Amino acid sequence: MPRREVDVPALVRDARAGRPRAVARLITLVENAHPALREVMAALAPHTGRAHVIGLTGSPGVGKSTTTNMLVSALRARGRRVGVLAVDPSSPFSGGALLGDRIRMVDHALDPDVYIRSMASRGHLGGLSWATPQALRVLDGAGCDVVVVETVGVGQSEVEIAGMADTTVVLLAPGMGDGVQAAKAGILEIADLFVVNKADRDGADATVREIRHMISLGDRTEPGLWRPPVIKTVADRGDGVEEVMKGLDKHLRWMRTTGELDRRRLRRAVAEVEAIALAALRTRMGELRTGQGVESAAARVVAGELDPYTAADEVVAALA
Amino acid sequence: MPRREVDVPALVRDARAGRPRAVARLITLVENAHPALREVMAALAPHTGRAHVIGLTGSPGVGKSTTTNMLVSALRARGRRVGVLAVDPSSPFSGGALLGDRIRMVDHALDPDVYIRSMASRGHLGGLSWATPQALRVLDGAGCDVVVVETVGVGQSEVEIAGMADTTVVLLAPGMGDGVQAAKAGILEIADLFVVNKADRDGADATVREIRHMISLGDRTEPGLWRPPVIKTVADRGDGVEEVMKGLDKHLRWMRTTGELDRRRLRRAVAEVEAIALAALRTRMGELRTGQGVESAAARVVAGELDPYTAADEVVAALA
Repeated sequence: MPRREVDVPALVRDARAGRPRAVARLITLVENAHPALREVMAALAPHTGRAHVIGLTGSPGVGKSTTTNMLVSALRARGRRVGVLAVDPSSPFSGGALLGDRIRMVDHALDPDVYIRSMASRGHLGGLSWATPQALRVLDGAGCDVVVVETVGVGQSEVEIAGMADTTVVLLAPGMGDGVQAAKAGILEIADLFVVNKADRDGADATVREIRHMISLGDRTEPGLWRPPVIKTVADRGDGVEEVMKGLDKHLRWMRTTGELDRRRLRRAVAEVEAIALAALRTRMGELRTGQGVESAAARVVAGELDPYTAADEVVAALA
Repeated sequence: MPRREVDVPALVRDARAGRPRAVARLITLVENAHPALREVMAALAPHTGRAHVIGLTGSPGVGKSTTTNMLVSALRARGRRVGVLAVDPSSPFSGGALLGDRIRMVDHALDPDVYIRSMASRGHLGGLSWATPQALRVLDGAGCDVVVVETVGVGQSEVEIAGMADTTVVLLAPGMGDGVQAAKAGILEIADLFVVNKADRDGADATVREIRHMISLGDRTEPGLWRPPVIKTVADRGDGVEEVMKGLDKHLRWMRTTGELDRRRLRRAVAEVEAIALAALRTRMGELRTGQGVESAAARVVAGELDPYTAADEVVAALA
């Protein structure tokens, strides 16, 4: 199919020079799974690995956007270039409303050193796991010092995002007690920092205590043992932002000292490479499909002549 | 790794004889991605393709469990063997509470011709798309006449489930108006029947009108054109169940007449075979990983020496 020509060297040069429109176009290439991405990623590769990637997740209503906004202000005050990637794991049933409050980020809309982008995962070849790391790579390669990936804690998404971040911040709010209860299973596995936002409300201290208790019961035994701090904030007033910034810096230092940063980045790169490889294999299967491969095997499965495993074996053999 | 020996022929024989515990063990094999599954699926293959697979989805609170319960009662009154698969796309954040009301299904807990099973998608190699079709295959092969797959409308799950069903029922309730609004995008693509439950509440007629209006705007142009009926129910009283049953039967007949049933089942088998093939390829990649393949390529990506696409090429080449 014919596609608009892309002048990759110029785009990458402009993105690295901090031109927001060039960054935007590169991320659009990611969203469209554009063939020029190969060339983009090859050009960006030497410039990546510098950004501190912070994952921010939490249930709807805990104040993710205001917290991101608060962090961006603090980072800009330190002169850092910041990228924000708001990933919306939206479905037909929940619609795009999750990002409706993106408007709160207007504080930074005119700052050329803040790049803000919403990304939907729907319809992607490999979903979140395919597109997000590549969008992160674009922001990293474009010279962002910090990239915040914000996602709503729904479905598997926050676990996936945690896998893509250097540091994962789990946001909670008082009065969402069942949330904390329900979250027990997975929350400790992914949180490097807990932030209890809206801490001026009743129940904030109870929520903090509950999380501390959970942490004390946890059995994280990483080298050097990182114990996630629990920080109270009132994001729309900026209260607590210094503590959060300190927590983030401390976690980054801890990861550098213990080698955890390298381990996490290696793990992330493995997942990214695998996702691209799987997408490529899936595309090949699609080509097989029109060429009768998968479809004829599947037809025999429907007829009960073949089981799906034997059919899959045939497909895999045809790929090789 | 050593696994418990599985006497597959005996299990399949017992499952086909309608022994619930044998069915349960087979689905557990699916959940565990047990190596014996190949043999299970080969043994079941000649017996599959008979069940009418009904997908039932809707937002939390619309009454999915009571509706399923109502349908099971009606199907049992007709002497049908029924399987219910409640798929929980739960995350660490939403916990397992979604299925807490499974207790309402106690009406049928002692009926040996009703097989009820909850399945979590979390942690699965290929998630929902890998495990659910195989669990359906087990229930189908075990002799269920109808299998209801119930899932909450969160994330991508209901679209995936719709892809696995012969007939998809979208459940709504009055007073969830925004739900209908927000859902517009995807709901029409997947619904073969709309059921407005809790129709004794205010606003039921308005909800029905809204859906009818949506349908009239839709542009579904399948052969013979199926126009989804909109049926009102009060599931906990059994009101409307006959209309739903008629709608389901009519849809099945329509699919048989138009060839749509074959098309859907072929599409489903293609997806199932692809999911198994991708899982197999992913496993091979994991083996490569320990053998230095993916990991060494990923390490060069982390170091900025290689872009992820070139790394993925190397991995794909190593698989062949």
